[in-house]
Amino acid sequence: MDKKGAPKSIKLPEAIKVFRNLTNAKRFAIDIGGSLTKIAYYSTLSYRRANYYLDKEVSSSSDDHVYEVSETARLHFVKFETKYIEQCLDFIKSNLVGSRESMAGKIIKATGGGAFKHANLIQEKLGLKVEKEDEMSCLIKGCNFLLKNISDEAFTYHRHANPEYEFQLADPNIFPYMLVNIGSGVSILKVESEDKYERIGGTATGGGTFWGLGSLLTNAKGFDELLDLAEVGDHRNTDLLVGDIYGGDYRSLGLDSDLIASSFGKICDASRSGKKMSYKEADLARSLLFTISNDIGQIASLYAMSHNLNKVYFGGYFLRNHPLSMHTVSYSINYWSKGTVQSLFLRHEGYLGAIGAFLKGAEMCGENYSWQENYAGSSGLEPVPSSWLNSTVPVAQLELDRWGSPLAYCPLLAGTDYIPDTVDLNADHQARDYWLDCFEESIDKFVCAAIASQADNETAAERASQFKEKYIRRLHQFRKQPFSYGNLTVRSLLDTIQHYMREFDFPDPYISIKQSENEAALSQLAERISHIDSLSWEAKQTELAIGMLAGNLFDWGAKAVVQIMELEQFGLTEARRRIPKRPWVEDGLDAWIERLKGPPHKQAAIFVDNSGVDIILGILPFTRELLSRGTKVMLCANSAPALNDVTHKELEVILHQAGMICPKIKEALEAGNLVAMETAQAGPCLDLSRLDSGLAKALQNVDLIVIEGMGRTVHTNYNAKFKCESLKAAVIKNQWLAKRLGGDMFAVVWKYENPS
Amino acid sequence: MDKKGAPKSIKLPEAIKVFRNLTNAKRFAIDIGGSLTKIAYYSTLSYRRANYYLDKEVSSSSDDHVYEVSETARLHFVKFETKYIEQCLDFIKSNLVGSRESMAGKIIKATGGGAFKHANLIQEKLGLKVEKEDEMSCLIKGCNFLLKNISDEAFTYHRHANPEYEFQLADPNIFPYMLVNIGSGVSILKVESEDKYERIGGTATGGGTFWGLGSLLTNAKGFDELLDLAEVGDHRNTDLLVGDIYGGDYRSLGLDSDLIASSFGKICDASRSGKKMSYKEADLARSLLFTISNDIGQIASLYAMSHNLNKVYFGGYFLRNHPLSMHTVSYSINYWSKGTVQSLFLRHEGYLGAIGAFLKGAEMCGENYSWQENYAGSSGLEPVPSSWLNSTVPVAQLELDRWGSPLAYCPLLAGTDYIPDTVDLNADHQARDYWLDCFEESIDKFVCAAIASQADNETAAERASQFKEKYIRRLHQFRKQPFSYGNLTVRSLLDTIQHYMREFDFPDPYISIKQSENEAALSQLAERISHIDSLSWEAKQTELAIGMLAGNLFDWGAKAVVQIMELEQFGLTEARRRIPKRPWVEDGLDAWIERLKGPPHKQAAIFVDNSGVDIILGILPFTRELLSRGTKVMLCANSAPALNDVTHKELEVILHQAGMICPKIKEALEAGNLVAMETAQAGPCLDLSRLDSGLAKALQNVDLIVIEGMGRTVHTNYNAKFKCESLKAAVIKNQWLAKRLGGDMFAVVWKYENPS
Repeated sequence: MDKKGAPKSIKLPEAIKVFRNLTNAKRFAIDIGGSLTKIAYYSTLSYRRANYYLDKEVSSSSDDHVYEVSETARLHFVKFETKYIEQCLDFIKSNLVGSRESMAGKIIKATGGGAFKHANLIQEKLGLKVEKEDEMSCLIKGCNFLLKNISDEAFTYHRHANPEYEFQLADPNIFPYMLVNIGSGVSILKVESEDKYERIGGTATGGGTFWGLGSLLTNAKGFDELLDLAEVGDHRNTDLLVGDIYGGDYRSLGLDSDLIASSFGKICDASRSGKKMSYKEADLARSLLFTISNDIGQIASLYAMSHNLNKVYFGGYFLRNHPLSMHTVSYSINYWSKGTVQSLFLRHEGYLGAIGAFLKGAEMCGENYSWQENYAGSSGLEPVPSSWLNSTVPVAQLELDRWGSPLAYCPLLAGTDYIPDTVDLNADHQARDYWLDCFEESIDKFVCAAIASQADNETAAERASQFKEKYIRRLHQFRKQPFSYGNLTVRSLLDTIQHYMREFDFPDPYISIKQSENEAALSQLAERISHIDSLSWEAKQTELAIGMLAGNLFDWGAKAVVQIMELEQFGLTEARRRIPKRPWVEDGLDAWIERLKGPPHKQAAIFVDNSGVDIILGILPFTRELLSRGTKVMLCANSAPALNDVTHKELEVILHQAGMICPKIKEALEAGNLVAMETAQAGPCLDLSRLDSGLAKALQNVDLIVIEGMGRTVHTNYNAKFKCESLKAAVIKNQWLAKRLGGDMFAVVWKYENPS
Repeated sequence: MDKKGAPKSIKLPEAIKVFRNLTNAKRFAIDIGGSLTKIAYYSTLSYRRANYYLDKEVSSSSDDHVYEVSETARLHFVKFETKYIEQCLDFIKSNLVGSRESMAGKIIKATGGGAFKHANLIQEKLGLKVEKEDEMSCLIKGCNFLLKNISDEAFTYHRHANPEYEFQLADPNIFPYMLVNIGSGVSILKVESEDKYERIGGTATGGGTFWGLGSLLTNAKGFDELLDLAEVGDHRNTDLLVGDIYGGDYRSLGLDSDLIASSFGKICDASRSGKKMSYKEADLARSLLFTISNDIGQIASLYAMSHNLNKVYFGGYFLRNHPLSMHTVSYSINYWSKGTVQSLFLRHEGYLGAIGAFLKGAEMCGENYSWQENYAGSSGLEPVPSSWLNSTVPVAQLELDRWGSPLAYCPLLAGTDYIPDTVDLNADHQARDYWLDCFEESIDKFVCAAIASQADNETAAERASQFKEKYIRRLHQFRKQPFSYGNLTVRSLLDTIQHYMREFDFPDPYISIKQSENEAALSQLAERISHIDSLSWEAKQTELAIGMLAGNLFDWGAKAVVQIMELEQFGLTEARRRIPKRPWVEDGLDAWIERLKGPPHKQAAIFVDNSGVDIILGILPFTRELLSRGTKVMLCANSAPALNDVTHKELEVILHQAGMICPKIKEALEAGNLVAMETAQAGPCLDLSRLDSGLAKALQNVDLIVIEGMGRTVHTNYNAKFKCESLKAAVIKNQWLAKRLGGDMFAVVWKYENPS
């Protein structure tokens, strides 16, 4: 690379393209620190979205489904070492193309200590007027944004525990907290609300001290090399421990033998007593890391305690998710606060200032939207990004996709300790190995579906192959660093598939399958309804349950089922036969039927699963029975496609069609007693802490929540407790998981709970 | 010196003998730190004490005065680098002589981190059984002892102020306080009473870190050399300042441009930006000192604030009264506590542990005694003791002389901000220069008096010459370091003379003069009384005042008077003529006489000054008039000799003799209406915060305090405020001082104050 010229491309080693979509970049911000620079920009994004219309009158196309071009927005954050700032600005300049002229004279928000130093360079390269923003207020704005929007953003770190990383859900109630920003120096901020914060302290012993002293004491070429040295050093060769002085614990003061009494205290102690010194530079690096991390931890805990704050978040370039540093800081805070203060780290600690600077006056990111991390376009959490070592211009990045509405917590959840996922694959090594193998083995099915969905597109095969390569690489990354994108769960693995599918322009690989299955199922609806209506009350209730479970077998996400569905002419009748004899592994059917003898529910919310037989022959008859009892029903479907799950848009079409077949349904639709709602979910699982805010509001009057399907009720929400009655129904289409639950393939969960 | 053998002698460069009186050492304690060791021992001391008897019946000797041998006790604390421990133990061993056998099998209290390491060595060298004492409890016991007993022990340090050092009086109410002990590591202790303390925190970033890192970063050979380096370095070459980052102040956060943002932050900042580094190792040393001192200061202030403690004392070997270190710690504590926490340093910070270890179970040091620093036998406060650089075995020491009774605060003082001394010569440079010159010029008079007082002793001339040499050396030390022994004052200069006089075995140089003058004055008492009795009431009161002032002219401590007294046949009549015309520089005579027209005082305490004419023809007639009015009188005299001041013992004899001349006096003595009290003072000045506790108790019912003489009422107590009526009377026998007060030679102070 010519040092003067712009690099042709800047790539992450995992081959995530960086500085994406610069052509459509609308607005820039920059945070220039002494060692790292972060550039933020907003881009508008055109993407294809598949839609299909069963109701031909509604469709304007001759085809059954069409791709519509939609526009959304994305926030890009790119982090690189400040020494590459000129190359990066050149790269942006040469890629801005169209937008360059339209940006002339516009502003770029800038923050960080380097903002004033590099203002002219930015002006010259990008033609943007630099508008400086206060560093601390940017940090806090960025921190608030991440904590409120990004799931698993904050985590606690436990070096010797399983899991090492414990991630926390995004939480709208984040205040008050303390933010310790460790850059070259340290700032300690008390944050009480979006608008109210105070710098309550700081210390000059920070990252600059570590790097400065480290470069004097060792031959490390940079910060990360110094951290690597520290990782392998032994501080007991340089630090004087309590045991070195007192020959053991200092019991009357409660000081353990292996507690550090004096950092670097052995250097001169040895020379004094004439002993030969025997330490390596790695030992010095480790001592230095301990000295600084301990010190910051102690000072932070003292401030936290004196201000009655029990959550301390860390930002800045010092920790950079380095396990030993996080461990020392956590240990120190825990030790000095006697466990009353919790240290929390941020996956995207480095981006706080850039995010905050970008948000200053950026209305398009306001309260009317929410943002979600794009797993396909973001770097994972790594102590030292491998990009740092292997690339010409080492870069890390974060991409956030805009979601068209704000999100909210499900009001029906009992308690405040909701965790969507049933199993944490960070902690459960056996389950992790199983699911990573399982997903890797299944990937070809997804690839085939993706290609089949765009059979007439000549780039489809190539894109699908890229999809496969990258997804498998990500799976391999998860094997080494399961904590890369927060808690590793079946949900996150499924979500990642969706993100990659969208990334490679396969917006809905199962659209044709969904369509044909819906058509086939609708053709059987009348017969199914009349069969059910012919049954006695008690038999009818059982049949509705069995039908729902049988319907739930139709799942293109489940390998075992896919094989069956591909091999046989498979219908509800065949599926019914596979439902095992009772008692099921979770068998609340008797209790459920008993309950139905009582007064009707006022309103039920049913979180639905698959298209076709599942929604039409399983859920709709069940819904029809609830409606008959006088219960209002809202059917809650995904906002965006995931496998063959029915989407909200599709559900609306299906209900319209079903209404034409069944007058009861039509009547309920017209009366508003049956409505389709969207969940704001885009995967086969269900995170009830991040529901569409309109749905969350509507749920307030619900007294029965029904959740259907393996993803929504076993991978997630299996242990969720509700304030109202709940019914969780699923067929386990996975041998391994069924065995874990004490059953066999196609084990049934019919979990009815009544909190009263 | 043979490394294996015991050194022949160990001397401080100022030629204070160290390890004195080992022959009579009774009890040892030792505090062995990683870098410094402190040995403590108790010795009994025989000393000559002069007594004289006017009343021949009482005297058993044929001579008018005799030297009695008395016994007292002294505490010795000797500090040296731990690397010399073997030499020092050898030195003790070879000097223990007589006491060696009697000590066999006895114990030595030992504390400090090195106690367990060197236990065998001590056992082997001294034959003492090592009994370990808890380090922290020793530290606190030592700290309490120093704060309660030693005047000017604690001080605040203000690098850029005048005075730099502000010392505090000893105070019986010392609790609660925080003690920060900075050894290799740092312990932070909250002390609530003699028995209640808690280690509330600490940090491993301490003296060991400074020395350890310093030895890696510089070529300094030892701790003090590293401090010297730090003193000349410029941290702005290595530390990143707020201004370096932001181009000026960071105003919205209130951070000044020259505040350190990142310690050592410029080291890598420079390399990052390709700038040439330009720092010296002195700069590194200074940065390091700042890093560690700031850190300790901040942590200490946080603990102090969270425990509501506003006094923080520092102990341990790190600070070692190094101005830059004390400044940084003070600055840091003041900055972080916003001025609410005061940092206090101790002149004898290094001895805390040794003192505490010694006191453990040492009944002879209990509540029945008090202890006073022996200025002649103690090293002064020096950032780096010059002994450290010039001696084979560098040593510093502290000697405390036992006082036979506990001391107490004068109950008549108003308020709690009593400062005995009128002028602080640390701050008042002009006055300092004057008095140091004045004392140096006067020294030969003291020397002559000393020799004359032991005319028949063949070593007297030699001892007197040693006295002169050492005292002048001490005066020279005060010119450079006026803060060496606390606040430099006329009082401390006078006390130092007394300490040296005792040291060279001149217990009372003026005893013959006092005796002959008392005899002469007594021979005139009857005539004086009859003259006064012949006057009208108003004329009598004036004459009594004038007589008291004229008597106060007879002062062998005042150069101007000595010349007159030596040249002329000088009596009360001649002295009366020298008293200037009214109005005097302080003239409360009219108010005083007006007051005397009112009801009599219940009880008066008169703090008397000189022997001879002063006490007998000035004070006694004044006292006789008070007695006539029905006022009880206690005459308060020094406990030990100082110049020609009358001592308590002498006063008793004088009163007995006066009683034989004047029936009124005899009657009052017999009725207990006139008593002689001792003050526990041993100098020409008066520290009302350290009175004999018996006297302090007796003063509780006093409604008139009279203080006489230049030392007691001008050099000290000039500004003292009392709860009761007070009369301060003196003749200023010093041209310079008289001019300062707005008068001329023999200016008169007659200051009458009535608080009601």
